[in-house]
Amino acid sequence: MPPPATVRQSPVINLDRGDPSVFEPYWKKNGGKCTITISGHESLSYFSDPHSVCWYMEPELQEAIRRVHRIVGNARTEGYHVVVGTGSTVLFQAALYALSSSSAAVAQPMKVVCAAPYYSQYKEQVELLQSRLYEWGGDAKTYDDEDKTAPFIEVVTSPNNPDGSLREAMVANKTENGGKLIHDLAYYWPNYTPITRPADNDIMLFTLTKCTGHAGSRIGWALVKDVAVAQKMTSFMQITTIGVSKDSQLQAAKILQVVADDCESKAGAFGYGGDDADRTFFGECRKVMAGRWEKLREVVKGKDVFGLPKYPKRYCNFSGRYFQPAPAFGWLECKEGCDASALMKANNVLTRGGETFGASNRYTRITMIGREEEFDCFLERISGIHCVDEDKDKDKEGEEGLVVILDNNGDAHRGNGDSNGHGNWLHEVK
Amino acid sequence: MPPPATVRQSPVINLDRGDPSVFEPYWKKNGGKCTITISGHESLSYFSDPHSVCWYMEPELQEAIRRVHRIVGNARTEGYHVVVGTGSTVLFQAALYALSSSSAAVAQPMKVVCAAPYYSQYKEQVELLQSRLYEWGGDAKTYDDEDKTAPFIEVVTSPNNPDGSLREAMVANKTENGGKLIHDLAYYWPNYTPITRPADNDIMLFTLTKCTGHAGSRIGWALVKDVAVAQKMTSFMQITTIGVSKDSQLQAAKILQVVADDCESKAGAFGYGGDDADRTFFGECRKVMAGRWEKLREVVKGKDVFGLPKYPKRYCNFSGRYFQPAPAFGWLECKEGCDASALMKANNVLTRGGETFGASNRYTRITMIGREEEFDCFLERISGIHCVDEDKDKDKEGEEGLVVILDNNGDAHRGNGDSNGHGNWLHEVK
Repeated sequence: MPPPATVRQSPVINLDRGDPSVFEPYWKKNGGKCTITISGHESLSYFSDPHSVCWYMEPELQEAIRRVHRIVGNARTEGYHVVVGTGSTVLFQAALYALSSSSAAVAQPMKVVCAAPYYSQYKEQVELLQSRLYEWGGDAKTYDDEDKTAPFIEVVTSPNNPDGSLREAMVANKTENGGKLIHDLAYYWPNYTPITRPADNDIMLFTLTKCTGHAGSRIGWALVKDVAVAQKMTSFMQITTIGVSKDSQLQAAKILQVVADDCESKAGAFGYGGDDADRTFFGECRKVMAGRWEKLREVVKGKDVFGLPKYPKRYCNFSGRYFQPAPAFGWLECKEGCDASALMKANNVLTRGGETFGASNRYTRITMIGREEEFDCFLERISGIHCVDEDKDKDKEGEEGLVVILDNNGDAHRGNGDSNGHGNWLHEVK
Repeated sequence: MPPPATVRQSPVINLDRGDPSVFEPYWKKNGGKCTITISGHESLSYFSDPHSVCWYMEPELQEAIRRVHRIVGNARTEGYHVVVGTGSTVLFQAALYALSSSSAAVAQPMKVVCAAPYYSQYKEQVELLQSRLYEWGGDAKTYDDEDKTAPFIEVVTSPNNPDGSLREAMVANKTENGGKLIHDLAYYWPNYTPITRPADNDIMLFTLTKCTGHAGSRIGWALVKDVAVAQKMTSFMQITTIGVSKDSQLQAAKILQVVADDCESKAGAFGYGGDDADRTFFGECRKVMAGRWEKLREVVKGKDVFGLPKYPKRYCNFSGRYFQPAPAFGWLECKEGCDASALMKANNVLTRGGETFGASNRYTRITMIGREEEFDCFLERISGIHCVDEDKDKDKEGEEGLVVILDNNGDAHRGNGDSNGHGNWLHEVK
């Protein structure tokens, strides 16, 4: 059946990508404080700090990274080495290399696993060059770990992309050899989630993209406990890109220092919490995120079509109050038999379907950090989607302005929503 | 034999790395024109130009790249797609991926070959992740191409790193299937070599590091004829680093525009040559490079220890005059039986030995683009190295202030120097 004419008239809303435009209004207002000037006689050398393990890292950036973590309280930095990357994506690959190329590794490629739903890009990155060092092992929950001595790598994303859940290692701690862990903590900032304790994992990945929203600067960093691993990660960076843009390192250092200054001036060092914390960069952004989630839940609540994960309130040490996480992505669940991203697509909303994340296509991921107007437009769009019971409304099928989403073999992956039953899905096009 | 005490007293000179400090004086004087300011509300998106194949490329940078090539005349850009990378190193890997992952590729890894002496990092990059897509095939001159149908990749570096020679493909054009070519043209700029024609190869790599000296900005670009290859290279960049620093892209755009303005203001568009061209950025830098080469040749000429490649004078279209290349690296040759980098190391000069480049250890690479004072100190240091005939001077062995370099099995790799004969090498420590 061709899509009804009205579908073509509604503009495409792209909620697939994780471009952090939500932070733009804040930085339009406050970005002047972060202005830096770069002259033509700078950036003339590969080297920044020959005394650091990560020799291409600007000392100012390292200092700013350590300071922000100290103030926010989301990660321990004492005893850790900092390794900078062109975003955290490449540091994930650097960590895979560091963990799999050690002499202790066996001849077989190391399996890389992650509990589903997992960030769709891990698999793509692991498989890109068909490496003999490592290979994709799929869902950590179903990882067949019969050979307890075979080393493997588990990626732990917490809060998780796509579903916002807080996570611990699934497999690595249960096996004899312990496995190797990479913690992707890109979203462990108080603009998204309560900071309950300073993380102290072996390898922790962070990125400016999700912390402050500066995706275009392509600055990520790893906090690494073992110096040999930090050295190997730096080697990887040396061989693949001979370091990381100094211009962006200096810009990132400035931004993080401004964020840190802001926190300290509002509440004084080690005295955050309550109203003071609410007026910091993180507090301001949390309000925006919480507002979006409230609106989304409101729209979803009124319908029997969708479900959303529920997150318990937790005490945030940085904010000095209890609050519910407001993740960067919404993990939208439809009833069984419904292809969630196809349903969205039929409404001209681009999302990332559950299968990409190793989950059922009943789920789809929508960005919560895009532009305000796009988000509002999306809310309006999904308000018009209705569930129609198959038997009751059989005669309505094919009616103008309605798109039929056919039954499919969606598996029984459990979600947090309150969906149940089967049936075809119809939705009215706004 | 322990090194004599005097060795320890002379400071280490590092001529191993290719840090382009030679350009620093120029930019200290002229860098103000390239100053840019970056505010905190910029760089908030991954995306730059959704209409370009390379969606993360800043339009200003693409424009500046095309303009500089047009003015310098070193590469055709019409009909080419530009792909930007974090330096050109990563674009080499992106090209390997693009050429080896196409559906036409056979099940076996594609061999990657390059005529020796080849840039030492190609092998390291190819082998890093033990890919099943491609593998290092070694010297293109001895590449065993029995199976004429097996696809392979040849890297052509021209002017070549380490030896400054101008090169054409060795293998790729001689086989039935033509092979695939990657041209690394990092040094094809008039500060190093006469520009004899606009290059028009399928994939051409360039980097700001060697063009203007801004290594820390980590900006490289590829000019790519085939849109499918450009798309695949962009995919590689998307998966590995989700783009390239916008801050550095904007800084690079500014620098290249200033260089282009400088060329046009000195000579007017399409009217370069002679004294006018000498006063441009490229002309000024060429003078410095030529001066260093003259000094080096002077020192080497007076000794029977070393040889250097000789380069014919050629007409440079940009400069409007004949001149001899002044490459970024000196490819120093010693007589057979001498380990050139060990000889240098014994004099506390760090260089990169010939074996790293797939050549004999009679050769070693010294940077010509380092700091002035370090270069002068190096010249003074090697002035003190003397050749001592083994039989004639046997009694001098082990004398204080002299280090014996033992015979080894250096192969008979041909160089351009006028060295011949065998013998042990002694050198006086200055």
